[in-house]
Amino acid sequence: MVKGAKINISGAFGSHYINVLPQAAHYKGEEDYAVAFATPVDAEGITYICQYTPYSAERDQVDDMEELGNPLYGQRETSMVVFDNVFVPWDRVFHCGEYQYSVKFVTRFAKTHRMTCGGTCKVGFMNQIIGACKLIQEYKGLDKATHINDQLMEMVALRETCRACGMAAAQRGAEEPKGSGVYLPDELMGNVSKLNVANAFWRIMALAGDIGAGLVVTLPSLKELKNPEVKDYVNEYLGFGSDSSAENIMKVTKLLQNWTAGLHGVGTWHGAGPIMAQKIMLQRVIDYEHEKNLVRQTLNLKEEKKGKQ
Amino acid sequence: MVKGAKINISGAFGSHYINVLPQAAHYKGEEDYAVAFATPVDAEGITYICQYTPYSAERDQVDDMEELGNPLYGQRETSMVVFDNVFVPWDRVFHCGEYQYSVKFVTRFAKTHRMTCGGTCKVGFMNQIIGACKLIQEYKGLDKATHINDQLMEMVALRETCRACGMAAAQRGAEEPKGSGVYLPDELMGNVSKLNVANAFWRIMALAGDIGAGLVVTLPSLKELKNPEVKDYVNEYLGFGSDSSAENIMKVTKLLQNWTAGLHGVGTWHGAGPIMAQKIMLQRVIDYEHEKNLVRQTLNLKEEKKGKQ
Amino acid sequence: MVKGAKINISGAFGSHYINVLPQAAHYKGEEDYAVAFATPVDAEGITYICQYTPYSAERDQVDDMEELGNPLYGQRETSMVVFDNVFVPWDRVFHCGEYQYSVKFVTRFAKTHRMTCGGTCKVGFMNQIIGACKLIQEYKGLDKATHINDQLMEMVALRETCRACGMAAAQRGAEEPKGSGVYLPDELMGNVSKLNVANAFWRIMALAGDIGAGLVVTLPSLKELKNPEVKDYVNEYLGFGSDSSAENIMKVTKLLQNWTAGLHGVGTWHGAGPIMAQKIMLQRVIDYEHEKNLVRQTLNLKEEKKGKQ
Amino acid sequence: MVKGAKINISGAFGSHYINVLPQAAHYKGEEDYAVAFATPVDAEGITYICQYTPYSAERDQVDDMEELGNPLYGQRETSMVVFDNVFVPWDRVFHCGEYQYSVKFVTRFAKTHRMTCGGTCKVGFMNQIIGACKLIQEYKGLDKATHINDQLMEMVALRETCRACGMAAAQRGAEEPKGSGVYLPDELMGNVSKLNVANAFWRIMALAGDIGAGLVVTLPSLKELKNPEVKDYVNEYLGFGSDSSAENIMKVTKLLQNWTAGLHGVGTWHGAGPIMAQKIMLQRVIDYEHEKNLVRQTLNLKEEKKGKQ
Repeated sequence: MVKGAKINISGAFGSHYINVLPQAAHYKGEEDYAVAFATPVDAEGITYICQYTPYSAERDQVDDMEELGNPLYGQRETSMVVFDNVFVPWDRVFHCGEYQYSVKFVTRFAKTHRMTCGGTCKVGFMNQIIGACKLIQEYKGLDKATHINDQLMEMVALRETCRACGMAAAQRGAEEPKGSGVYLPDELMGNVSKLNVANAFWRIMALAGDIGAGLVVTLPSLKELKNPEVKDYVNEYLGFGSDSSAENIMKVTKLLQNWTAGLHGVGTWHGAGPIMAQKIMLQRVIDYEHEKNLVRQTLNLKEEKKGKQ
Repeated sequence: MVKGAKINISGAFGSHYINVLPQAAHYKGEEDYAVAFATPVDAEGITYICQYTPYSAERDQVDDMEELGNPLYGQRETSMVVFDNVFVPWDRVFHCGEYQYSVKFVTRFAKTHRMTCGGTCKVGFMNQIIGACKLIQEYKGLDKATHINDQLMEMVALRETCRACGMAAAQRGAEEPKGSGVYLPDELMGNVSKLNVANAFWRIMALAGDIGAGLVVTLPSLKELKNPEVKDYVNEYLGFGSDSSAENIMKVTKLLQNWTAGLHGVGTWHGAGPIMAQKIMLQRVIDYEHEKNLVRQTLNLKEEKKGKQ
Repeated sequence: MVKGAKINISGAFGSHYINVLPQAAHYKGEEDYAVAFATPVDAEGITYICQYTPYSAERDQVDDMEELGNPLYGQRETSMVVFDNVFVPWDRVFHCGEYQYSVKFVTRFAKTHRMTCGGTCKVGFMNQIIGACKLIQEYKGLDKATHINDQLMEMVALRETCRACGMAAAQRGAEEPKGSGVYLPDELMGNVSKLNVANAFWRIMALAGDIGAGLVVTLPSLKELKNPEVKDYVNEYLGFGSDSSAENIMKVTKLLQNWTAGLHGVGTWHGAGPIMAQKIMLQRVIDYEHEKNLVRQTLNLKEEKKGKQ
Repeated sequence: MVKGAKINISGAFGSHYINVLPQAAHYKGEEDYAVAFATPVDAEGITYICQYTPYSAERDQVDDMEELGNPLYGQRETSMVVFDNVFVPWDRVFHCGEYQYSVKFVTRFAKTHRMTCGGTCKVGFMNQIIGACKLIQEYKGLDKATHINDQLMEMVALRETCRACGMAAAQRGAEEPKGSGVYLPDELMGNVSKLNVANAFWRIMALAGDIGAGLVVTLPSLKELKNPEVKDYVNEYLGFGSDSSAENIMKVTKLLQNWTAGLHGVGTWHGAGPIMAQKIMLQRVIDYEHEKNLVRQTLNLKEEKKGKQ
């Protein structure tokens, strides 16, 4: 029988089964928290309390999916999951009280999740943002605006940096445990990957918000394109005197609203664990011996007294 | 008769009169754009096309204002204003074709607006954000968490920097024109003020989003506190085992959602003109002669040939 | 009789008297360190052990001061001061064992020093750097290079931000103690001022180093201008095909070497106390009550239980 | 017969031969600059005018190499190379007037050089800096100082980011020309690599300068350890009350001086071409078609009119 809650988890209610892992390293006395198990998503005693954000409200009010900023893929739906005395049969319990091993669950999960979901998946998000910025630039006839080209380049450089860290985490991965045929990413690089993404994403939001301009937050509804009273005005003035249609400009601006004026900054930062979780992990795995020895050798340092370092 | 549109302007329809200014410096051949006038907000031919954002949708669906993230002050409402052959009587026209003076209108407006609305008004916004972060930290019993105290301090330092620039812009202000009794802020410092705010605001959003945690974007509706099916769960698990009520925690988190996962990053950047507008102004007003002379003197430089510098 | 050392202090041996203050807040049991006194600079038992840096070596080897990067003002000379049983007559002892008051000495010193030496004095340094960058840009005929103009503007914005914080620290200063006629700067703003300067200075070094270009670190000696074997080459190729003399270009580049490839980054950071000292001060003086109350009022929060916050 | 100069090149005079490449893409009318050739380093007409920096002066004055900050590897020695009618036999001329191909020389050189020398070689430099910072932290007994551990971690994260970009540039490299058996790094990633290193290095200098503390720029000469008048003071006070010897502390601090208070910030930025060179390259190679198509598909955009985009 399991009792407790997971404050936020994306997409859980859309799965067949939920895998529940320990949340942190556990210590003596915390045996009751040292559990891992699988349960059908609709087992008795499980309740999902869904997130409700301005973006949820907007989706409720839409007549046509195309009015949304991310019409094709939608929003990641997150919920709080409450376990109120949920029964889990013994053959689906993987970990139960052996607190010494909880940390392994966490770190194996984390090193994968930080490389993929925390890190490289955002490379795909950035592609959408960069593509939208480039289209808006062209639609408005600003192809030659140096400062926009600079901003686009900065976004690409940030994206490639995130990609590189993800690639390096995979490339330096190792079989774990030896002989298992299971390869896991490098923990140091996986965490560095997430750290870079979290900061890069806010910066990309700022840059893309600049390119998308004030309209990103002041855009009228796409419904106005069908509103007989104002559609001519909208078509004229939101076409920006270019050959591009106001509809295209509004839709791309709406996509930029979704990415730069909504949930993604905080979401990217906290998805796969907040920055502080990566920092704790990094403090645990960084080893300075190699670098210290390099300096000892470069400087021909005297042997340090015992009991020190 | 005036024809044209202003793409985004906040609060216009709530005023009695609108003052319309030129948008940029104008040059020969642009006389028709070099206009300034006042018009009643409901003059014939004026149409307001309001912004519609996820935050507008959320407000439409709310049962009680307290469910919103900024219940007391609400959202700034912005709209596109279309002028379709609006008649303006001659005694309310202040500028008409004298393109040589358009730039004065713009810069006088800009130097004030960048100090106040672009700059120091955000000091007040930051107060709300910082207060909310401090409360959440205390509600969750994290008063001693060093990294949160560091982040709060960074926010305060950013806020004080913005405040200082606003103060300095005012202090270095000058009477303009001489003898008029009208004092305007220093243009260089006013633009620096806005520049700092735009960057600082995104950084504060990232920091506050970190302190508010994932719940900032995954929070269930405040309605759930009254939902008999789940209110006990919400009260228990969103109380975080502290003495603080789930309601307080949820409301403060909702306020942080409003500030860090919505319109304010892009809005702050573009309000009072985007960064590029400040940069253009700065390029216009910065004068390097004093600094060049300091170096000439320090280095006892040879006189430079005529025709150069 | 005083025994101890101050690890680094600038210019001490050039003064008539040294004022010695406690270094930190002191607590019970530390009475022996809670001292403040004045002593002639050459009192028996005082030894100065001077810094020796690459820049000291260069000064030793110079034939003509003009070969140096900062010929007019020279280098700040710092030394370690050792007190080896120095006798201080009682009438020059200001503080002796009253550890409760040590913190006042430190903070009064710090709030002044961080505004002036840590903060605004660097505005003057930045003037030299900015002037040199502008001259080099003009000497090389790069007046129209957009990216250099952008970098110059960024430097000016950083300088003005530092200036504004210094001005605000002074403006918000207060008489301390009341009625004394002595005004001290605002502690919060003074520390924010130093914090901004420390970061801004490294950024300005990077920007100025970019404008000065690789020559900043690869410049031949100014002696080569008098070396018959190579002076024609130097005059031709370091004149960069411009009307400006190679001598002027070399001297300005040498000044940039002094500022961007030497002691100033670390020196600015640590002068008036390292960043961590400012952070500790800030943690001590920031008060969040006003901001918390704003949020309580905005959200109509429930009274929090006693014993919390 | 070749005439001209290369303003700065490292180590040239220590080679057997110099390979000279065109410096930029060349266009019609610039045939005379479109040359590539090899020449013995001591061919008639070649003159080397060496750099002279404060660090050169220090090396001149040293009694024992161990007094220097980088005693084992020394300083990279750079010089201006002047070619005054140097004869190059035809069989060592690889490129002569075929301006259309100059850009290939440049980009092939640049893509390799930016990955290796501009990028990953600095990972090795960072190892020295990080090792020195860790040793100093331990020598001074500050192992538990949270803010120093944070700074070390930030340095490691920056180093790993640079490493990852270098690895990715290699991994995404391609055979060029096809069938040649010669593989060159990916141009986009190679340039991103250099861009990241240039910024990271200044940041690492600031962090390491903070850890090394003011002593980094105020350190007395290592000669003082042998100076009978002051060696006892130096041993006592620069031992910082720890078990570590003053000599070790001084030598490690001297190494940090070399890295954080000297030529490396500007040198790293400009080595392998300044930031602007990378930006120009990036503008040339970035292609946005893939990203634009992703957005067209996500938003079901209308076909854009011909003649646009």
